[in-house]
Order: sequence, then structure tokens, then C-alpha cells
Amino acid sequence: MTRYKLTIEYDGTDFFGWQRQKEQISVQEVLEDAIFKFCGEPVQVFASGRTDSGVHAFGQVVSMDLKREFPAFKVREAINFHIRPAKVAVVDAEIVNDDFHARFSATERSYLYRIVNRRAHLVLDHKRAWFVPQQLNADAMHEAAQALVGVHDFSSFRAKDCQAKSPIKSINQISVGRVGEEIRIELSARSFLYHQVRNIAGSLKKVGIGKWTKEDIKRVLEAKDRSQAGEMAPAWGLYFVGVKFDPQEEDVGHDLSAGESATAQ
Amino acid sequence: MTRYKLTIEYDGTDFFGWQRQKEQISVQEVLEDAIFKFCGEPVQVFASGRTDSGVHAFGQVVSMDLKREFPAFKVREAINFHIRPAKVAVVDAEIVNDDFHARFSATERSYLYRIVNRRAHLVLDHKRAWFVPQQLNADAMHEAAQALVGVHDFSSFRAKDCQAKSPIKSINQISVGRVGEEIRIELSARSFLYHQVRNIAGSLKKVGIGKWTKEDIKRVLEAKDRSQAGEMAPAWGLYFVGVKFDPQEEDVGHDLSAGESATAQ
Repeated sequence: MTRYKLTIEYDGTDFFGWQRQKEQISVQEVLEDAIFKFCGEPVQVFASGRTDSGVHAFGQVVSMDLKREFPAFKVREAINFHIRPAKVAVVDAEIVNDDFHARFSATERSYLYRIVNRRAHLVLDHKRAWFVPQQLNADAMHEAAQALVGVHDFSSFRAKDCQAKSPIKSINQISVGRVGEEIRIELSARSFLYHQVRNIAGSLKKVGIGKWTKEDIKRVLEAKDRSQAGEMAPAWGLYFVGVKFDPQEEDVGHDLSAGESATAQ
Repeated sequence: MTRYKLTIEYDGTDFFGWQRQKEQISVQEVLEDAIFKFCGEPVQVFASGRTDSGVHAFGQVVSMDLKREFPAFKVREAINFHIRPAKVAVVDAEIVNDDFHARFSATERSYLYRIVNRRAHLVLDHKRAWFVPQQLNADAMHEAAQALVGVHDFSSFRAKDCQAKSPIKSINQISVGRVGEEIRIELSARSFLYHQVRNIAGSLKKVGIGKWTKEDIKRVLEAKDRSQAGEMAPAWGLYFVGVKFDPQEEDVGHDLSAGESATAQ
């Protein structure tokens, strides 16, 4: 048995999220089907983050076991061959230690939330960013976001149907910046609650348009009440960017990948 | 009669290019139809560059006349209202002098050619960039591209069915750089021959993979023979970025746009 770590990119538009479901197409399903077509083994893959319908990923990480051992680059090329034309690609594959697990070994997950801030509707960024026509103040958004950094009870930013045992999470970093007409919100944490990033983005938008200040973000956080926060931002602005792991667990046991393992992010 | 300058963004994927045709949908047609729906005037629009099927634009510029005078922001909003869901948007509108013409007043046009250079097929950049899996040396491409800057006979990089009277063009600037897995080729000139940018991109790719050197680019240029150049790069990597104009002709006669005219590029 050989354990593999795959780094995955996908366009979330055509999928009902990461997780396999009975009636609707998921990223997990097309990935597992492509692996089966390549090696004939019915495998279950585990992801670092179970993204929602419409959410994109540059750097989703997946772990899986295969009975046969193949060079990592061959696994990447073979899955990519079989997965097309689905909008999913393996951008990197590595052989890793047997105790590596994409979900449980992860120590930090990073997301990007993209807003395009202009008067004209989106064309090249259609379904790739949140369209906000009102003028946004990125500096005010950044300043207000700092109230959310650290360990807090994030009940106000948590979806009703979130399955996490505790609403307490630790956000390592949030930065908000403007690049031309684009507002980029970058967040990292060990883990997030269900819809936490999109609820944060929706509340920061209220700061950006001048309806709220940093004090309102603090007030909402302290209220521990979802009804106090802003609207939930749409899925299509959200990108799963990458994952950090405990380096010990990730160390490669035996590398057959011949220098092909540099991540493409 | 009032003359308007519109700055247009489009996703070229769904269009058979800029120019109106009998059987196939063009950007010009959907734009003129939206203008008619808004004000009831059958207008003809003139573009700075007639892009090909599949080519995208951030900053295409269009001029047109309307009998009635509307504030520029209203023209922008009204066209955008009627043009949806076509993947075309007016990102800016201005009232300009009557001697302004998007095609004839242009003094410089800028294009971007995007290559994604990695092993995995494209997902988020599907139909938005040229996928080149062989490792490319961007520095060598940049160095070789400098042989094309200046006034030259570009017959080697000209499409068979190009309608320009002369193959002599002056390229003001070409720069090639790498941003992560992306190679960006930026070019500017007063005007380009038909397929010139895509033929240049295809030849620079040969330099990037190490098959050609700067000397080969010089040799091809001097040959004045299309069969000597590299393959033509695909349309979907090409973006019409922007246009410069003679400032005198662009000066606004009477501005009703109330500070809404800053371009979004």
C-alpha cells in the first residue's frame, strides 16, 4: 500500500461541492472515478477541506492509498488523462508517509475571497468573483478584519447546519487589499466553521461600503448570534488556496517521483 | 449628434470575433443590438481593434454617435442592462469630441498573450490561456523578443489573408515575464498585422522550450516568409488590453458624465 498526496485545482461552477452525493456530481466523485479508470482500484480520497457548491480551488489537498506503487508523476498524468474534460486537475502528486492524512495532518488552511468592485457586471470574472458595484474601502475592511484574528467564538459567522462540535476557532491571519478593481480577502486558520469565510466576507463588505465600522465587527463577533452578521457572500468568490501540514507526517518515505513533485501554486 | 467612447470587456469564447457577420454571433452585433434596445437608434460602432474568434478583451475601445444626448454613465448602465447575459460589458463611457474615432484616432494598441506553463491541463484558465506543458525559459523569450522591437517588415508573422497594405509595422515594446506558472507576453504598437501577435507568441514559445535562440527569431524576421515562423498560438491566450489616443481628439466637448469616466483597467 502506498499513500499519495495530490494537490488539486478545480472550477467549482459545475460541481455540487467537494463531497460525493447520491444525485449530484461532486469533485470527489469525478476524481475517484478517474483514479479507478487509471488503476482499477476503487479508492476513497480524503480532502483537506470539503468545499461547497460553486467554490473553487487552486490548492485543495487530497490523500489516498493505492495497492500498487506507481511513480508520483505517473499518478498525476494518468488521473489528468482520465479526468478530462471535467474541470478538475491534479497539479501535483507526491508519495508520502503512511501517517499523512490530508484532513487530519493539516495544520493551516488558506482561502482567498475575490470581490470585483466596479459598476459594470462581470464578464471575464463571471462566476469567479463576487460583483459589488458600490465603492469599497479596502483599507477600512482590512482594519476591521483584524478584530477577527485570534481565538474567538465565531457563532455569529457560522452556518446553522455547521457540524463542528465547537464554534471556537483561531484565525491566524486576515488581510484585505485592493488590486485595481479587485478586492482580495486572504484568510488562514487551522480550520474554519461551515460558511465562516463567506459570512466574514459579507460582513466586511458592509464595512467596505461604509455601513459598518470595526466596532460593528467587534459587536457582531461578541453577539455570538448569526442574525447579527452581514449577508453570506456568494460561493463563486471563494477559492481554497492551500494547506500547511505537520512536516514530519508529510516526509516522503520513498520518492519515485524523480524531481517532479514541486507544487505549482 | 453626440459622440461616445466606450471601453469594452468581453470573453471571446462564445463569439466569432469582433466584426458583425451574417450567420454567426459577434461582439459588434450584441453591442449594437443592446444600444438599439436602450435608445431605439440603429447605430454602427467602430472598434480600435477587430479581434478574432476566441480572443478576449479588457480594454477594447469603441466609438459611436447617438442623435440624443445622454449622460455617459447612463449610456454605460443602459447598454449593460440590455446586453446581459452576453459576456460583454461596457466598463467605461465618455462623451468625446466629434473628431474622435476609436480606430483612426488610436496611436497605440496593447495586447497581452497568456501562457500557462505546467504539466496539468488548464481548469480555471480553460479557454483563457495557452497551455504549454514543456518548461519555458521566460528570460530567453524576453531576450529574443527584443529582436522584433522597432520598424520591420513582419511578413514572416503575417496571416495569408491579412488585408493591410504594407507588412511594415513598428512594435514599440515587447516584454516577456513569468509570474508563477504563467508566462505573460505584453506587446504594444500603433497597429498590428492580422495574426501578428499570435504568430509572434508561437515563435517565442520555440525559444522558450530551447529549440530556437534569438538568432533564429532574427533569421525568421529577415526571411519575410510566413512558413519560417513558428506555429500560430491559439486565440484564447490573447487579450486586447488597451488603446492610446491622440489626446487632442479625445478631449471632451461637454461632459455630462459627472466624474464617472475613470477607466476601470
